[in-house]
Amino acid sequence: MNSYIVKNENALFYECGFSCDNALFLRFGADEAYFLTDGRYITEAKENIKNAEIIDAKRDLIKKARDIIKKARLKNILFDPLEFSVAGFGALSKNLSVNFIAKKNFSQIKRAVKTPKEIELIETAALLGQQGFERFAAFLREHGVGKSERELHYEAQNFMRHNGKNKLSFSPICAINENAAKPHAAPSENAALKNGDLLLLDAGVKYRRYCSDRTRMIETNEYAAFDDKKTQKFKDAFRQKIYDTVLKAQEAAIKAVKIGIKASDIDKAARSVIEKAGFGKYFIHSTGHGVGLDIHELPVISSKSCAILEEGMVFTIEPGIYLPNKFGVRIEDMAAIVNGKVKILHENG
Amino acid sequence: MNSYIVKNENALFYECGFSCDNALFLRFGADEAYFLTDGRYITEAKENIKNAEIIDAKRDLIKKARDIIKKARLKNILFDPLEFSVAGFGALSKNLSVNFIAKKNFSQIKRAVKTPKEIELIETAALLGQQGFERFAAFLREHGVGKSERELHYEAQNFMRHNGKNKLSFSPICAINENAAKPHAAPSENAALKNGDLLLLDAGVKYRRYCSDRTRMIETNEYAAFDDKKTQKFKDAFRQKIYDTVLKAQEAAIKAVKIGIKASDIDKAARSVIEKAGFGKYFIHSTGHGVGLDIHELPVISSKSCAILEEGMVFTIEPGIYLPNKFGVRIEDMAAIVNGKVKILHENG
Repeated sequence: MNSYIVKNENALFYECGFSCDNALFLRFGADEAYFLTDGRYITEAKENIKNAEIIDAKRDLIKKARDIIKKARLKNILFDPLEFSVAGFGALSKNLSVNFIAKKNFSQIKRAVKTPKEIELIETAALLGQQGFERFAAFLREHGVGKSERELHYEAQNFMRHNGKNKLSFSPICAINENAAKPHAAPSENAALKNGDLLLLDAGVKYRRYCSDRTRMIETNEYAAFDDKKTQKFKDAFRQKIYDTVLKAQEAAIKAVKIGIKASDIDKAARSVIEKAGFGKYFIHSTGHGVGLDIHELPVISSKSCAILEEGMVFTIEPGIYLPNKFGVRIEDMAAIVNGKVKILHENG
Repeated sequence: MNSYIVKNENALFYECGFSCDNALFLRFGADEAYFLTDGRYITEAKENIKNAEIIDAKRDLIKKARDIIKKARLKNILFDPLEFSVAGFGALSKNLSVNFIAKKNFSQIKRAVKTPKEIELIETAALLGQQGFERFAAFLREHGVGKSERELHYEAQNFMRHNGKNKLSFSPICAINENAAKPHAAPSENAALKNGDLLLLDAGVKYRRYCSDRTRMIETNEYAAFDDKKTQKFKDAFRQKIYDTVLKAQEAAIKAVKIGIKASDIDKAARSVIEKAGFGKYFIHSTGHGVGLDIHELPVISSKSCAILEEGMVFTIEPGIYLPNKFGVRIEDMAAIVNGKVKILHENG
């Protein structure tokens, strides 16, 4: 087993089941591990961490980490150069004889394959997220028309958070018509929801720190459709065509999921449906991303991804078509590879 | 004028009035400035930025920044080693002949002294924050008793956010009795508010990106007191003594604020009141911190701070006494130095 140091909160949690905003975790081979924090967090750390020695480093974690590294007479130690700032890494490594090896995303690389227990937690997050969509849909039926995007965004957050029982995976995207044509739309004060408008909601929650992620679209008046089998009816034939194309692309990508194939082939399966329909240039992002403790993890599901799909991977499948100044459509679910087969988290009814 | 590069969102905003999550700002002396972003943000950047050339760097900002730096034939360029990751700085600086000079917090150092306009924005944020406290207090009067900390925390957030009109400066701290003895208490599911309980709320909102920060304490049954002149009545004489000591410490610190004195003298003014009362070892943090675009800025108001107070500085004054397993008290306001005099943002009534 390698020796390494991590500081990112999700990387810390993955190593030892606990994290806080001032901590370092060091592992030296199979037998030695240290969790360094300050007095504020020692009690909770001791209650939660079983696989590492817990050390109160007062306010100087870096100094303490240096002492421990020196004493261990290591040859090499891995660190993630995306995780440490220039200043932090400088203070940590200065004049130490150990060889610090930069390996980008090394915690995320380990975390790309989930255990059955982790998949269970993600599935629970997905179920809680879906219930948030249902509560939001019920609100829309009664009170949606006339609300601004900003207000809808606020309400969507509250329904996802469910009186504070859930934490959000990320700030939801809630967009009407042409605003949905921007993949990362910020909510606007001006647009108010009218009958016939398209509404997109991209949102997720956490369960025991594991994230969910989902996107649905509706045409106002058809609220109940938020959680059915993703078949949606639109009055306008062009909208219907765009929506059905995205849905077909998503279905093709889901069908393509298989152990041992390239992640880029999943992207290709979705993209070629959209390209064949003549909208290839309006599918302006990759098909998906891994989900776990971080909302964006590995594998990347894109045309350039070198990842090979494995048992236990969990990732989104979220093709979209974005027609500038008109409207945008995206449909997103999370897929897991379980017992060699694709499983949608959480499949409706 | 120096040449420098920044990437932190608040540092970007301070330089040019706009920011987004994928951008770099470069300034070369007085005349040359560049804002680099990708296609998603170009339209908004052009609408908002007047003092820099806006460049669509596609997805490779680092490459574009390197090209611009090379072309400018600079000798030196400042960067903040806390702002750049080891990987990001490595990619930016590799094989360039310019001398990158690491200067920690250099954007925050510039921002420590606020303009009258900035102080106005912070004062508005403080007023909006105070109104949030008032809405929360009204809710408590009707519905507070029996609610768990987690529920109170959730409601406090909603009242501060005011239907999404305000953004939070930070996730509020809402703590009952002994939980208030932990300066960074996470809300508990177990504790439910009872008559006679102490309740602490530490919360703030943003106005045009400028933050507010405030802490008040009440004894349940005395809700209306949230926004009076900070005099609070407690049934228990010991609680009253602790509260009055903290209040006296805060008043002493506010009174000590003066241009040209050391920030550490403000800390000393508060700390000596608490020490004289015999609770010195229970005042376990510094007296305050600067507030602006970041919720924690310069100057630091601590016993070790080397800062000298200047016209235009804005900082919190927030002494506290934390009695483990019993209760904690903290009182916090923001102070600005305006026309040579201390001004509390926002003074009640």
